[in-house]
Amino acid sequence: MTPIIGVVGGGQLARMMLPVAARLGLRLVFLARPGDAVAAVWPDVVEGEPDAAGLRRLAERVDVITVEHELVDLDTLRALAGEGLAVRPSADTLDVAVDKVRQREVLGAAGVPMAPWTLAGDLDAIGAFGAEHGWPLVLKRPRGGYDGRGVWMVDDAAAARAVVDEVDGAALLVEPQVALTGELAVLVARRPGGETVVYDPVETVQVDAMCREVLQPPRVSAVAAERAHDIGRRVADAIDSIGMLSVELFVSGDEVLLNELAARPHNAGHLTIEAAATSQFENHLRAVADLPLGAPTARGPAAMVNVVGGDVDPYERLADALAAEPDVAVHLYGKDYRRGRKLGHVTATGPDLDRARHAALHAVDVLTMPAS
Amino acid sequence: MTPIIGVVGGGQLARMMLPVAARLGLRLVFLARPGDAVAAVWPDVVEGEPDAAGLRRLAERVDVITVEHELVDLDTLRALAGEGLAVRPSADTLDVAVDKVRQREVLGAAGVPMAPWTLAGDLDAIGAFGAEHGWPLVLKRPRGGYDGRGVWMVDDAAAARAVVDEVDGAALLVEPQVALTGELAVLVARRPGGETVVYDPVETVQVDAMCREVLQPPRVSAVAAERAHDIGRRVADAIDSIGMLSVELFVSGDEVLLNELAARPHNAGHLTIEAAATSQFENHLRAVADLPLGAPTARGPAAMVNVVGGDVDPYERLADALAAEPDVAVHLYGKDYRRGRKLGHVTATGPDLDRARHAALHAVDVLTMPAS
Repeated sequence: MTPIIGVVGGGQLARMMLPVAARLGLRLVFLARPGDAVAAVWPDVVEGEPDAAGLRRLAERVDVITVEHELVDLDTLRALAGEGLAVRPSADTLDVAVDKVRQREVLGAAGVPMAPWTLAGDLDAIGAFGAEHGWPLVLKRPRGGYDGRGVWMVDDAAAARAVVDEVDGAALLVEPQVALTGELAVLVARRPGGETVVYDPVETVQVDAMCREVLQPPRVSAVAAERAHDIGRRVADAIDSIGMLSVELFVSGDEVLLNELAARPHNAGHLTIEAAATSQFENHLRAVADLPLGAPTARGPAAMVNVVGGDVDPYERLADALAAEPDVAVHLYGKDYRRGRKLGHVTATGPDLDRARHAALHAVDVLTMPAS
Repeated sequence: MTPIIGVVGGGQLARMMLPVAARLGLRLVFLARPGDAVAAVWPDVVEGEPDAAGLRRLAERVDVITVEHELVDLDTLRALAGEGLAVRPSADTLDVAVDKVRQREVLGAAGVPMAPWTLAGDLDAIGAFGAEHGWPLVLKRPRGGYDGRGVWMVDDAAAARAVVDEVDGAALLVEPQVALTGELAVLVARRPGGETVVYDPVETVQVDAMCREVLQPPRVSAVAAERAHDIGRRVADAIDSIGMLSVELFVSGDEVLLNELAARPHNAGHLTIEAAATSQFENHLRAVADLPLGAPTARGPAAMVNVVGGDVDPYERLADALAAEPDVAVHLYGKDYRRGRKLGHVTATGPDLDRARHAALHAVDVLTMPAS
C-alpha cells in the first residue's frame, strides 16, 4: 500500500489535492483549523495548529508529512525527521523557501541569476546600495511577505526612511527595481532520490502585487523560457526540493532573474489541473509518496484567473457565470466571502491564448460583480 | 446557495462526482453501505439501503435526490416526488431506463430506430419470431441484466429451450442478432426545463460482454456518428431525462440501432474527465442542481480502458504502472480486489487515438498482471 500522508494545512491547496488522492488511493490526513476549506470535503482531518503539539498529533497518524503552506514550526519538523518520520519537503528546504535572504545566498552559490542584493539594517546601508546600483529600490522583509505585503518600492532615501521606521529598523532585503517585461513561474516536481520533472514556464500577471492571471504559453522570448526552465531544475537540485516547487522569476527581455520560491503547490500551477498531462497536485502527492512522477506536458493554451472577493459572494453568481462561459472550469474554494480575499479561480483552455484569457476573465467578472 | 443533493449509491460513479462537488461548492450527501467506495473520501454519508427506509432517511437531509445506480425503490422515489422533493431523474425516467421492453415501447413510438423485437413468454413465440426474422436470436431478461448477465445468444430452438428452462418461463425480450460493425454510446446531459447538451458519440469495445475500452473519436462513419447524436437527443427528450443519460447503440455500417440506456453517469463517459470541456460528472451535478450545463466539447483523441481484477491487486502495481506510462490518468476506485471485478480505469489522451489506446492498454496490463 501507499504511505499515509499527513498534510499540514487545510486551505485551497490542500483541497485541490483531494481528487488525486481519491483517484490513486492515497490516504491523506490533514492538520487543519475548524472551518478550514478542507473539512467540508474530506473525512479525515486532525484539528490543530501547525505548532509542535499539532504536528506531533498529526505525526502519530501518518508515514510522511508534507505541507500546503510554510508557516509551520520547522524545529518540530526537524525533530520529527530526526525521529525517523519522512518529511517532504525537508525543514531545510522550507527554511530556504521562506527566507528571501537565505534563498539568495544558497542559490547565488549555485549559479542562479539574480539582481544585486544586500541585507541592510539601517538607512545608511540602503543609501549606499542605492548609490551603487541606482534608485528606485525594492525593500522586502526577508520572511513572511505575500501578495505584496512586506514589499515596498522606494524612489529615494526619504521614502526608504519611512519604511525603516515602519519595520522598526529590522533588516531588509534591498534590490534595485528591475525594468520588467514580464514574470514567469516554473513548476518543478522532484522525488526522493532526485527524479525531476520540469513544467514549461507559465506567465504570471500581477495586479496590485497579487497574482491575477497565469498564462500558458508565456508571452516571452524562447530564450527567456528556456532559461527559466533551466533555472527551475537548478533551484530544485540546489535546495533538495521534494514535492512541488514554484520558482518565480523576473523577466527583462531575454534576461531571467530569481524573484522568490514556494516549496509546495502554488497558484501559478492551478492551470495544470486542466491544461497539463499531470497536475501539480498529482505530482506533489506522487513525489511525497515516492511514486514515479507524471509527465508535465502542456495540453495547449490556457489561462487561469483568480477570483478575488469583489462586490458579491461568488457562490451567488455561480449560475450566471456557468451560463456566461460554458466551457471554463470554475473552482471555488468553499471559503467565506470577504472583499479582497482569494476565493477561487477559473481556468479556460484553448483554442488560443487570447480566447482562453477572455473567457476566464469574463467568467471571473461575472463571479465578482453583482447582477446588473 | 446551491441545493443539498442526495445521491443514492456510494460506488465509483458517486466517488467521481466528488471533485466537481468540491470545486463548485455543491453539498452532497450519499446513501451508501458501510465499506462503499465513497465513505473513505467524503465526510457526509448516510448509511443505508436504497429502500423505503434508506431513501426517506436521505430525503430528510436534502433538497434534491439523484442516483448513481438504478436498483432503487422507485415507488418511494415517486412518493417523495409527490411530497414535493425534487427527484432527478424522475422515477418514470428510471423505470424506462431499467426496463428494456418499456424502453422499446416508448422509444419506438418516438421514432428511435431499433431492431425488430418481441416479448415472448414461451418457446413457440420465440420460434415464430425466429421464423419471421431469422436465427440466430438474442434473448434478454427485460430487467436487471448487466455486463452480459441476463443475455443469451441462441442459434436455434434447442438453444432457446435451454434458456426458457433456465429462466423458468419468464417473459424474454427477443431480437435478431445484428451483424455489428461497432458499438457507440451517446452521452446526453439534460436539465429541468429541457436545456440539453449532447456529447459527440464515443465507441465502446466489449470483451466477454463487459465494456473494456471507450474510444474518442469513434471509428464509425460520419453518417453513423451523426445519427447517434440525433438519437441521443431524441431519447433524452422522449423519456424526460434529467442529469446524465447514456444511450448505447449498435452500429452496422451507417445504420444505428438502440441497444440500451442508463439514466446516470456511465462507464462510457469516464474519458470526459480528461478529454471533454466538461465531464459527465460535472454536467450530471449541474443538471441535478438546475445549474446551466457545461460545454460537451471533445478535447482531442482519447482512450479509456477499464481495470478489471486480474492476477493481482492493482494498488500493488500502481508505482510500476505510473512509471511505465507517465502521461496517462490512473483511476482506482478504492474497492477490494477481486478477480473479474471492475476496480478502476485508465484514460490516455492524444496525440492520436492509436497512441492513446496503446498507452492506456499498456498501463492496464501493468496494473492487472504480476511483476515479471
